Amino acid sequence: MSTEEEVKNVFVAVHVGAGNHSKLNESSYKDICKKACKQALLLLKARCSALEAVTAAVAALEDDELTNCGKGSNMTVTGTVECDASVMDGETLHFGAVGALSGVANPVVIASRLVEEQKLGPLPYGRVRPSILVGKGAQQFCVDRGIGITDNLVSVAALKTFRHYSRKCLKSETTNCTHKLKKRKLEIEESTLSLSSVNQSPSADIPRADAIHDTVGAVCVDHFGNVAAAASSGGIWLKHAGRLGASAVYGAGCWAQNQMSDIKTGVAAVTSGCGEQLMKTLLAKTSCDSVRSSDNLTHSLANSFKDSFLESEFLKPCNEKFAGILLLRTVQNENREVEVAWIHSTASMCLGYMSGHSKAPTATVSRLEIDSLPGQAYIMSSHFVLL
Amino acid sequence: MSTEEEVKNVFVAVHVGAGNHSKLNESSYKDICKKACKQALLLLKARCSALEAVTAAVAALEDDELTNCGKGSNMTVTGTVECDASVMDGETLHFGAVGALSGVANPVVIASRLVEEQKLGPLPYGRVRPSILVGKGAQQFCVDRGIGITDNLVSVAALKTFRHYSRKCLKSETTNCTHKLKKRKLEIEESTLSLSSVNQSPSADIPRADAIHDTVGAVCVDHFGNVAAAASSGGIWLKHAGRLGASAVYGAGCWAQNQMSDIKTGVAAVTSGCGEQLMKTLLAKTSCDSVRSSDNLTHSLANSFKDSFLESEFLKPCNEKFAGILLLRTVQNENREVEVAWIHSTASMCLGYMSGHSKAPTATVSRLEIDSLPGQAYIMSSHFVLL
Repeated sequence: MSTEEEVKNVFVAVHVGAGNHSKLNESSYKDICKKACKQALLLLKARCSALEAVTAAVAALEDDELTNCGKGSNMTVTGTVECDASVMDGETLHFGAVGALSGVANPVVIASRLVEEQKLGPLPYGRVRPSILVGKGAQQFCVDRGIGITDNLVSVAALKTFRHYSRKCLKSETTNCTHKLKKRKLEIEESTLSLSSVNQSPSADIPRADAIHDTVGAVCVDHFGNVAAAASSGGIWLKHAGRLGASAVYGAGCWAQNQMSDIKTGVAAVTSGCGEQLMKTLLAKTSCDSVRSSDNLTHSLANSFKDSFLESEFLKPCNEKFAGILLLRTVQNENREVEVAWIHSTASMCLGYMSGHSKAPTATVSRLEIDSLPGQAYIMSSHFVLL
Repeated sequence: MSTEEEVKNVFVAVHVGAGNHSKLNESSYKDICKKACKQALLLLKARCSALEAVTAAVAALEDDELTNCGKGSNMTVTGTVECDASVMDGETLHFGAVGALSGVANPVVIASRLVEEQKLGPLPYGRVRPSILVGKGAQQFCVDRGIGITDNLVSVAALKTFRHYSRKCLKSETTNCTHKLKKRKLEIEESTLSLSSVNQSPSADIPRADAIHDTVGAVCVDHFGNVAAAASSGGIWLKHAGRLGASAVYGAGCWAQNQMSDIKTGVAAVTSGCGEQLMKTLLAKTSCDSVRSSDNLTHSLANSFKDSFLESEFLKPCNEKFAGILLLRTVQNENREVEVAWIHSTASMCLGYMSGHSKAPTATVSRLEIDSLPGQAYIMSSHFVLL
């Protein structure tokens, strides 16, 4: 293909969480997905790498306050915003993640930077470049690289949700009220007060209609056939400060592996749902492993989701199991084939996708059948694209 | 077995790192292992759980300044001490970890506490109890539970190593000296100065003889046949602040699974070495998976170590691959059989073990053959015990 010829053999898919998306906001969620797809396609058509494209797509999702990542992230029980994000590069198999990172508008960019720096090889005296940075150290990494730190990542909706649920939870927890819980209640009230810089509407006590959605993510294949995956999350509302979610855990939130000599498919996956459940089942990796060598992607993905998640021995104590997976598989024949699939046990999952041949992105909110129980049933769809 | 009958069907194994243990300190390292074994055996004989016993064993290792965990931990490039630790309970399959935790003498106790609290089930409104806590949030978890925070975790040896290597590294890095590196140099000098409370000998410029050793860990089987594993580490010397090592990463630093209806063996493993390499290969989980259903433990462990670590596609950019694994497998027949094995590609690995029948623990420093290349070759041993 000459440099003049238009690049079309590229593909991106994004999602804004497996959870419970209100009908009210459905078109907004779909618009966010479309915008992120377009952003990634711009880069992919300019022959940028899959890693650059997933990073740009997820950064676009982080920039929107309606998503639970970047600005708009859920708040911790102590009223702070702490973000997790990760990327995996299918070509080099490098992984980068940040966890419990405050004050950075685009955590996925930092995770991506960690991968780029790993590509430079070890530091002097055999010191290894880090894959995962958390908390203050992650923030220092940003400062050292001239990336700005801001206090202004709390969205109005996140603050409303925080206020609503922190009161409800404390009321419930203080039924057996201890000195410590009373103290925590005071701390929360103080931290809420300290957020007075946030613009508040008169209805500030009403949480957003669809507070339960989680991690966002993107997967793509670039002009060179490389795949990559990226995930970002503000974590579950009222999480413990310092809690690491699946988006910062290797194998849980994202996974990507190029095709190899013995395995003729490239795979990339991102997950969303209950972070601890995604982690205990290493769901992104497990899903990719199950479809890499399979003849039938949808069959193997559904079986893997059932066996390794819904019926996993690691999740026995959980009555409800919440996850969503967005996965792509590429086969490089004469042309490039891409199969994109999504599966979720949450009430809904909102996603979008676009190929280099598409005039516009497609976006959809997938919902469980009306009589299916969230956390126990699942729904799956897939879509085949010839690039 | 009546409550009066002495408990003998228990076993513990511990290690103080795969790395490069000096001959000079060999007997001290072995003594530390023996002490930790005895500590765990006391609990196991009192019918405490495997989880309690591995926690106590690793806490004993953390308490000794010669090990790279708890007090004695390597220092970060900015002169702080940040610890990682994790535990996995083979009975419930719960995992708990802390990462980049400063000021806590026994990080493994906090990881264990996270598992104990997960056993209590979810919080009100479906909030999930955390598996992994990092940084300031992890410290807050301790404060809330009355666990003391201290500034006094820097050992004289760690400070010597820090001073020696930070100067060497900076000298090397400042060959292409930039403004930022000069600034970092100043920061390090300042942080070193602020450690003046540490008692310093006149030879404070000479690092400890065996600075390269890493994570410690313990595995055991209790009276009830449950297995558990625990790991703890100060991380590699001069690591980036906030860097998460394998001891805080699910599947990398420790793994434990009881025997089940379809798989008749219980397995527990802990790893040590280059944290990023242990993480990328999920080495503790991978090792356990390989031996769980195998007829020949040593054969499957060696094959797995070769295929999934030394020749792993995930470690292609690495010329040298450093890991050690300490693993036990139990079979519950009429009696209980335990097989304990260790394998390492590092120059040495120091470990100890003890059963309920033993009068005293056994400790050894395993070393690579004299003409073997560390990072490329490996050595393995195993030991069979009928309990």
